[in-house]
Amino acid sequence: MQSKKVVLLNRPVGALKETDMGVFDETLAPLEPGEVLLEIEHLSVDAFIRTTFDEGAFHGTAGLGQAVMALGTARVVDSRFDGLNQGDAIFGPVGAQTHAKLPGAMLQKLDESALPARCSLGVLGLATGMTAYAGMAKVAQIKQGDTVVVSAAAGAVGSCACQVAKNLGARVIGIAGGSAKADYLLNEIGCDAAVDYKADDLAGQLSAAAPDGIDVFFDNVGGEILDIVLLQINERARVVICGAVSQYERTGDVRGPSNYLKIPEKNASMLGFTVMRFAEDYAEIQAAITEWVLAGKLNLPEQIEEGIEQFPKALTMLFSGGHMGKLMVAP
Amino acid sequence: MQSKKVVLLNRPVGALKETDMGVFDETLAPLEPGEVLLEIEHLSVDAFIRTTFDEGAFHGTAGLGQAVMALGTARVVDSRFDGLNQGDAIFGPVGAQTHAKLPGAMLQKLDESALPARCSLGVLGLATGMTAYAGMAKVAQIKQGDTVVVSAAAGAVGSCACQVAKNLGARVIGIAGGSAKADYLLNEIGCDAAVDYKADDLAGQLSAAAPDGIDVFFDNVGGEILDIVLLQINERARVVICGAVSQYERTGDVRGPSNYLKIPEKNASMLGFTVMRFAEDYAEIQAAITEWVLAGKLNLPEQIEEGIEQFPKALTMLFSGGHMGKLMVAP
Repeated sequence: MQSKKVVLLNRPVGALKETDMGVFDETLAPLEPGEVLLEIEHLSVDAFIRTTFDEGAFHGTAGLGQAVMALGTARVVDSRFDGLNQGDAIFGPVGAQTHAKLPGAMLQKLDESALPARCSLGVLGLATGMTAYAGMAKVAQIKQGDTVVVSAAAGAVGSCACQVAKNLGARVIGIAGGSAKADYLLNEIGCDAAVDYKADDLAGQLSAAAPDGIDVFFDNVGGEILDIVLLQINERARVVICGAVSQYERTGDVRGPSNYLKIPEKNASMLGFTVMRFAEDYAEIQAAITEWVLAGKLNLPEQIEEGIEQFPKALTMLFSGGHMGKLMVAP
Repeated sequence: MQSKKVVLLNRPVGALKETDMGVFDETLAPLEPGEVLLEIEHLSVDAFIRTTFDEGAFHGTAGLGQAVMALGTARVVDSRFDGLNQGDAIFGPVGAQTHAKLPGAMLQKLDESALPARCSLGVLGLATGMTAYAGMAKVAQIKQGDTVVVSAAAGAVGSCACQVAKNLGARVIGIAGGSAKADYLLNEIGCDAAVDYKADDLAGQLSAAAPDGIDVFFDNVGGEILDIVLLQINERARVVICGAVSQYERTGDVRGPSNYLKIPEKNASMLGFTVMRFAEDYAEIQAAITEWVLAGKLNLPEQIEEGIEQFPKALTMLFSGGHMGKLMVAP
């Protein structure tokens, strides 16, 4: 079986470039016992992939010459693993490639009866909808009437996080770059206000949108935006650190939040989490999300790039802010 | 009545100097109804006083020419306030001076039966023992067996915080500068280990003292020490931000913790607090501290400088690390 895979050519220094990756043909060896052959249908384009390109990375370090780490959904083409049969849909760490030969034990069989398989990468994705739900419901513990600000709000996690907070009774302000994203937040995501960080006076825009201060900040960005928001938090605010996309490319030179002393001044908390902490709650969270999706209360727009050759460009787009909603590649 | 007061001469830029303050004579006007005349017995030398020297300060901004803000204990010399009589001991914001004429309603009458009045500035002080207790017991929620690290551990808050954590069942590592302070932490405060930040390899000393990682960091310092500790926190660690003495002199140029992304990686929390958040619990906290002091389980060594002229030097000493335990001035 022939496959095409995306490979890291060299460890990026500073901003990730498409040319840091290349796409190569590969001939897959025959299946061993316990393995399955997969045709990959959708690949999730996630910011954490960038972190695997550095030495000593939290999510494991990408080997040069191996397929870049990526989560995806796939169809089983052939199986030597009990419990997976030809035609089954699976979710797993399939890698950025068109086909894969993997141990069946690494894969999760998907139920496609309620929502399509690719929702496992988006609204039901561990790193997307599940993270947004856990961060808002479990970590921030959103209450009716909270004023909630979300950064990178037009991204996949942010788009879900805004809607989760709305569904839990909050007033939600999304921060994103440019007027197209502001329109998206107001019209497609249902934010109460949108703030354009590329326009002037982010602090002034924020205080106009949240005149009574900020109870919860769900931060995907870090850097200057985090510092500006910290100056406007309320007493007992919860600052949830979900990610820091502005800092992932600053190897060894991360900008810490200079205004972190607002945390003690305001009796506030900066709460970090990874969705894995809530493993015991996955079934409950998936059920809650599915119910909202079916009821039309949670909608994650998808942007799907066709062809494995688009993967390097799609990944760099995450950091340049060129997409909205859930970005996927259909190889 | 003649008084001597410490006055801010100019807003300090960078490191506080003794010469930023001066001591002046003042003639106090006669008492108005509702006022009391006080002879000040002990003044608390606290880091927050430095913050009042900046414009727009959290604790209020010191006026040039007025007595520098300071908490203290005093004896009532004359009273035109119902409820305070000559000879009573009081606690309050008396200012850095030898005598004061203040509204009685601002002052708290002290019970001297269990502990001496000056304990209101130290082991029972809001900004000292009460802060240490609230931070460890209420914010960090120390559990039996936690590994706890305290910075500025030889200072007043730190000395108490180490002992509170020990009394709650933790293993406690104090960070302070120099071998004299290390000896003090081990022999007078009862720390399990002491780490000297002025010696080489703070990270290595810490990992030797806490080979299984750090569950709680009680930080009074900020800056480089916070960054180093963040790299060694355990899953679900609680990083309690009590203060940031290293940063109070960096007006407009605070160094944020570059390693704050360890907070989400470790499912950890950075928890800020001011003791005022626990106003409802003050009586309970005071009772708990008093019981420990009387049982010999909490001992805050005192360093008392004699004469109001020593106040400017004592205040600068807080930032240069030249004291141990609770620093007071007896005017």
